[in-house]
Amino acid sequence: MRVINFNAGPAGLPLPPLERAQKEFLEFGKSGMSIMEHSHRGKDYDAVHNEAISLLRELLDVPETHDVLFMQGGAHLQFSLIPLNFLMPGKSADYLTTGHWSKVALSEAKALSAMVGTAREAVTTEHDGVFTRIPKQDELELDSNAAYAHYTTNNTIFGTQWHTIPEVGNVPLIADMSSDFIWKKFDVSKYALAYAGAQKNIGPSGVVVAIARKDFVESGRTDLSKTLKYSTVAKNNSLFNTPPTFSIYMVRNILAWVKEIGGLDAIHARNLKKGELLYGAIDAMSDFYKSPVEKDSRSYMNVVFRLPSQALEEKFVAEAKAANMVGLKGHRAVGGIRASVYNAVSVENIQSLVDFMEKFKKANG
Amino acid sequence: MRVINFNAGPAGLPLPPLERAQKEFLEFGKSGMSIMEHSHRGKDYDAVHNEAISLLRELLDVPETHDVLFMQGGAHLQFSLIPLNFLMPGKSADYLTTGHWSKVALSEAKALSAMVGTAREAVTTEHDGVFTRIPKQDELELDSNAAYAHYTTNNTIFGTQWHTIPEVGNVPLIADMSSDFIWKKFDVSKYALAYAGAQKNIGPSGVVVAIARKDFVESGRTDLSKTLKYSTVAKNNSLFNTPPTFSIYMVRNILAWVKEIGGLDAIHARNLKKGELLYGAIDAMSDFYKSPVEKDSRSYMNVVFRLPSQALEEKFVAEAKAANMVGLKGHRAVGGIRASVYNAVSVENIQSLVDFMEKFKKANG
Repeated sequence: MRVINFNAGPAGLPLPPLERAQKEFLEFGKSGMSIMEHSHRGKDYDAVHNEAISLLRELLDVPETHDVLFMQGGAHLQFSLIPLNFLMPGKSADYLTTGHWSKVALSEAKALSAMVGTAREAVTTEHDGVFTRIPKQDELELDSNAAYAHYTTNNTIFGTQWHTIPEVGNVPLIADMSSDFIWKKFDVSKYALAYAGAQKNIGPSGVVVAIARKDFVESGRTDLSKTLKYSTVAKNNSLFNTPPTFSIYMVRNILAWVKEIGGLDAIHARNLKKGELLYGAIDAMSDFYKSPVEKDSRSYMNVVFRLPSQALEEKFVAEAKAANMVGLKGHRAVGGIRASVYNAVSVENIQSLVDFMEKFKKANG
Repeated sequence: MRVINFNAGPAGLPLPPLERAQKEFLEFGKSGMSIMEHSHRGKDYDAVHNEAISLLRELLDVPETHDVLFMQGGAHLQFSLIPLNFLMPGKSADYLTTGHWSKVALSEAKALSAMVGTAREAVTTEHDGVFTRIPKQDELELDSNAAYAHYTTNNTIFGTQWHTIPEVGNVPLIADMSSDFIWKKFDVSKYALAYAGAQKNIGPSGVVVAIARKDFVESGRTDLSKTLKYSTVAKNNSLFNTPPTFSIYMVRNILAWVKEIGGLDAIHARNLKKGELLYGAIDAMSDFYKSPVEKDSRSYMNVVFRLPSQALEEKFVAEAKAANMVGLKGHRAVGGIRASVYNAVSVENIQSLVDFMEKFKKANG
């Protein structure tokens, strides 16, 4: 029996795309082989690859100015590739720090200082080792000559999310969207580069989706190996070297499901409803469940909350598991409860969690 | 119906590991979710990850001096990571050129010259734009102070294979084994680093296996981002960042199958038998089928041959396809026929091909 999966990532995936993959796992179409046994230069895989790209273009209204790229190495490799390509020696780039992963992005850029320019922190909302909010626009100390400004749209560990796009003037804006990519539509034209590890909202781990403005990609450093350059990926339709074909196939299946259930407007409506239900329950039972996050910074993808004691939190996680709900333990860095409620989690799943929370409070409150 | 798959990579995979994956695609064990929906920090995935590593250690007798690593980005990313980590500015490294991919490895290292030392060619067997042989030991112009010597054990496009390990003295030896990894056992202790993209012999695309000598990894450059350092991967058991979990799971399934059918001695015997059969047929019908490769350089993984005319080659590929055998078209750079006969291809599959070759010659010779 399938569980209700609140894992933070790799995360639960919608069932129909998984069933589709299972059905044709040994023979894709009438080709006599699994999609993962196909050449990445053959017409069967090519159709899947290009369908994944066009689905993303369609769902997000990606303008002609931007390319959709598939890459490897997770968001972590992006943390290195971005300064290698776009932070020329002598230049400086701005990093907006709002959580664990944005800190890592900054420290990875700094670690490359022998090869690239300077990575500076334009803001941080860290206090006492934690993050509970997104900064206001007037807190950002931006450099108008920055090579780029980098931020993280959703903070998986601390459960905060940007609900506006930071204003950075003419500076190219780069966003790590790993944990909230396509939770709703966004204005692609605002970004020089938006990237996301697939393993939260759009697929298995092992593939990154990057949406990159063509002229920004072309402005990148040229004295790099081909493999390390975004321009190589872009020029070759993400087929310069063998891509992670099965992962991209799964992304295709999941995007086709997103389209089928109504596209990103429907997904957004689902996610708003889920957030209302879950935060509504937390707020209605605020004598027992407490959100550490400032209200206007709450994430619709990772909902974190505390119970009156660590012992009760452990009991909560254990009893939820017995009730078929897994993945609710908060990140070891912060403790507490975290329900990651990515696109694959349904409104009904959230209702089950809320029902459980009410029962648990009654029994233990 | 499944075909006989002679694809060069991504390549055919053995059926039992695929069936195993299909069966538990929606629910791994009794966990209520697909293996790709599991956290990479959870115990279910952890067991798979560590089993894949121990199977490789066992099959290859990997000594305690070496770590088994899983990485992303294909052999291509290794072409950049190797000089970034091990070719310090001011130093030089030797590259042995025996085919297309070894040339690419060299050119990627050269392209990084602003950041790393000098990559030099220690030998090339290229003539008239093609490669038909592996060099003799006395042809290698080795630098005894080289940071490392890099070679490619099997040349996928030209169908040549090293049947000895080049002698490089005390220089750390690095091998790209992408297209013949575990075609038989090899002496791991001879290598500072041996790596292979999985998509030929051990899995789907999207994961690289690297076997690295611990002290060599530790000798790597420190002024790099964590993600770009082999030492980070090694220290974190390939779990520093989210690994391509499903690809590694497939590698586990395939290695378990290798062990089940008798390990690498059995695989080697199968591969020798396959080579005997196929090269035997080519030699026996040498008035019609011609191998361009020198006999002692012939590959047991990629068997290339020519027919009397391009028209006959096209007919051969088309009629083979009608007879359920696919992937036989030679690489566009060299034309002709290429049968990639990786570990998943059985002796019976080769017998079918040989039977077809005999019939085809009779009808067209």
